[in-house]
Amino acid sequence: MARNVRLGVIGLGNMGTGHTKNILDGKAPGLEVTAIADIDKGRLDWARENLPESIALYATADELIKSGSCEAVLICVPHYDHPAIAIAALEQDLHVLCEKPAGVYTRQVREMNEAAAKKPELVFAMMFNQRTNPVYRKMHEIVTSGSMGAVKRTNWIITNWYRTQAYFDSGSWRATWAGEGGGALINQAPHNLDLWQWICGMPKMVQAHCHFGKWHDIEVEDDVTAYVEYENGATGVFITSTADAPGTNRFEVTLEWGKLVCEDNKLYQWKLSQNERELCYSSQEGFARLEVDYSEVPTEGENSQHNGVLRAFAESILTGSPSVAEGAEGINSLTLSNAMYLSTWLNQPIELPLDEDLFLAELNKRRATSRLKDTASVVLDTEGTYGTKPDK
Amino acid sequence: MARNVRLGVIGLGNMGTGHTKNILDGKAPGLEVTAIADIDKGRLDWARENLPESIALYATADELIKSGSCEAVLICVPHYDHPAIAIAALEQDLHVLCEKPAGVYTRQVREMNEAAAKKPELVFAMMFNQRTNPVYRKMHEIVTSGSMGAVKRTNWIITNWYRTQAYFDSGSWRATWAGEGGGALINQAPHNLDLWQWICGMPKMVQAHCHFGKWHDIEVEDDVTAYVEYENGATGVFITSTADAPGTNRFEVTLEWGKLVCEDNKLYQWKLSQNERELCYSSQEGFARLEVDYSEVPTEGENSQHNGVLRAFAESILTGSPSVAEGAEGINSLTLSNAMYLSTWLNQPIELPLDEDLFLAELNKRRATSRLKDTASVVLDTEGTYGTKPDK
Repeated sequence: MARNVRLGVIGLGNMGTGHTKNILDGKAPGLEVTAIADIDKGRLDWARENLPESIALYATADELIKSGSCEAVLICVPHYDHPAIAIAALEQDLHVLCEKPAGVYTRQVREMNEAAAKKPELVFAMMFNQRTNPVYRKMHEIVTSGSMGAVKRTNWIITNWYRTQAYFDSGSWRATWAGEGGGALINQAPHNLDLWQWICGMPKMVQAHCHFGKWHDIEVEDDVTAYVEYENGATGVFITSTADAPGTNRFEVTLEWGKLVCEDNKLYQWKLSQNERELCYSSQEGFARLEVDYSEVPTEGENSQHNGVLRAFAESILTGSPSVAEGAEGINSLTLSNAMYLSTWLNQPIELPLDEDLFLAELNKRRATSRLKDTASVVLDTEGTYGTKPDK
Repeated sequence: MARNVRLGVIGLGNMGTGHTKNILDGKAPGLEVTAIADIDKGRLDWARENLPESIALYATADELIKSGSCEAVLICVPHYDHPAIAIAALEQDLHVLCEKPAGVYTRQVREMNEAAAKKPELVFAMMFNQRTNPVYRKMHEIVTSGSMGAVKRTNWIITNWYRTQAYFDSGSWRATWAGEGGGALINQAPHNLDLWQWICGMPKMVQAHCHFGKWHDIEVEDDVTAYVEYENGATGVFITSTADAPGTNRFEVTLEWGKLVCEDNKLYQWKLSQNERELCYSSQEGFARLEVDYSEVPTEGENSQHNGVLRAFAESILTGSPSVAEGAEGINSLTLSNAMYLSTWLNQPIELPLDEDLFLAELNKRRATSRLKDTASVVLDTEGTYGTKPDK
């Protein structure tokens, strides 16, 4: 590449600090950090002492966005502020890479998407780093190709997001309705919700059982079981938790021609010699024995994670190549988690598209009585904690 | 053993014929078939031609029960008739081994259990042949011993009950509300529902999504996803289907000290070095790495299945040893399946204990409009179809 993209990092917490270090270490060629903003003076002091002098420092996102010191921004602030900052940056003609989740409620994210749609010349991407994982890329390819027919059932047990009480105590905003806007579904599982919809499509109905503060002293959910139904009649289950030890990460998709199982970061395929839907009605045997070809599916490429998303973002700006995850797709996983909350709060199934105003009204009830915790903020080392390693 | 138990087999359909052949082949020492009853003259003709002359044949269960030609009965008639025949046999002081399910609705099964309770000197057992499987016996032992602490989550994907349309077309009563009283939950999955409650206990709430005639031309369910909550706060999911090919049989139980997974007829254990509930609140690390010991759990003994249940029944009568599954426990799995239907019909969570009259009223609505199929009855060879073999 001829030149580097001048990047402004907004928010120097756990994620912003990690990304900045990686870029400075040359792990995301094509990007150069030229500006940083944080409303916490302590974090700017840390940046002044530890980062190159060439990086311009700003006390607010707004100052950074209007400064002209960068052509693209990486948004790593608390979830509620993602859409507003993204919209401000887009309006200033800056490319945007936004940390997950896209926001906390879909109304604000829809507005962000509308702002992005008005500037198609800008790159707008989401930090869904698990989309770089070759096993999920392969699953996406097989399922969406149609080579195994229609999806009949999806099932993801993704409970390996273990967190102790100390984790939740490490920031007053953590695991609060007012500060973070949710728990496991908004902080840990958005990756999996995104992959689930990326591979299997969006359901039309969600019924969920979120358990709030079940395993930890927090006001948000740390245990979720959700059931969904898709337009074509397929059903699905999604289970997540931050208290299972060791947790499980097993993603199964049943299709007309067999099934796929992703577990321990390996992908296995059972492929029938014939479409089950045809066999069911043509076989004369009550207990038909099906011919099935079982194999581990080879996958290609490295799992480049966050740095891969950063590199693709730079390349997209410089060459027009596609992002790992388009920004406009961030609303899908958020719609799923919003629907899971709403289903639990109202104790009923929720049809999609979601009633975004009803959801916001219900969320605001929780925000109104939310208790920010009286704890000092700690910057945690998040290395190797993104749930991509198998537990076995 | 000094002598054989004189057994009357009531119902010479698929199961009754199979059990009779096995006993005649000497696979259930301690039992001797001395009487058979079937209301189908064709089946009695078949018995007259193919079975030893010494076996007395009866046109009804009642005649057999009152004949004095046996001291114990094996009930293999359609599900609705299990309780009434069991009660009649118990009242005649006959020991009873009943095929699963215990019945179709819990009210009749409660009455059966009450009749059995009045005759504690008689052996009353259920044909839950999968309880002889060493992996499930071991899971039961580990979970109920308390050595891994309280159960936190249970999850059984048991979708390897594949059946073609030809199977359902093989009997006019099959897969009808009037004839069989249900589908996958009443015919195939009772084994798994029984093992689930035997190992993990009964839940206090059930919310289910049964799909009726989704994959086959039948009026009952062939696809079920159920969510449950237990008294101690644990949650669970149970998924079954007769249309997944190849299906899955994966049973996971998460406990305070780790987890157990039974898959492909093997049992795996992850055991923590400390109780997660204590670690959660004592650890100073937000992303605690837990010490875990992973192993395949050795199991002992043969998986004797139906013949093992038959042998244990004889032994129980002759020596007082315990049955594989006590008759009174049959109501548990039936309560689960009844609750799953009721939850689907009413589209709401169902608290246990179940309202047995409400369930029967709802079931009777379906029986009233049930259509018996116009198909010839076929006796199927059921060898190797009990879902105990792994699919991989």
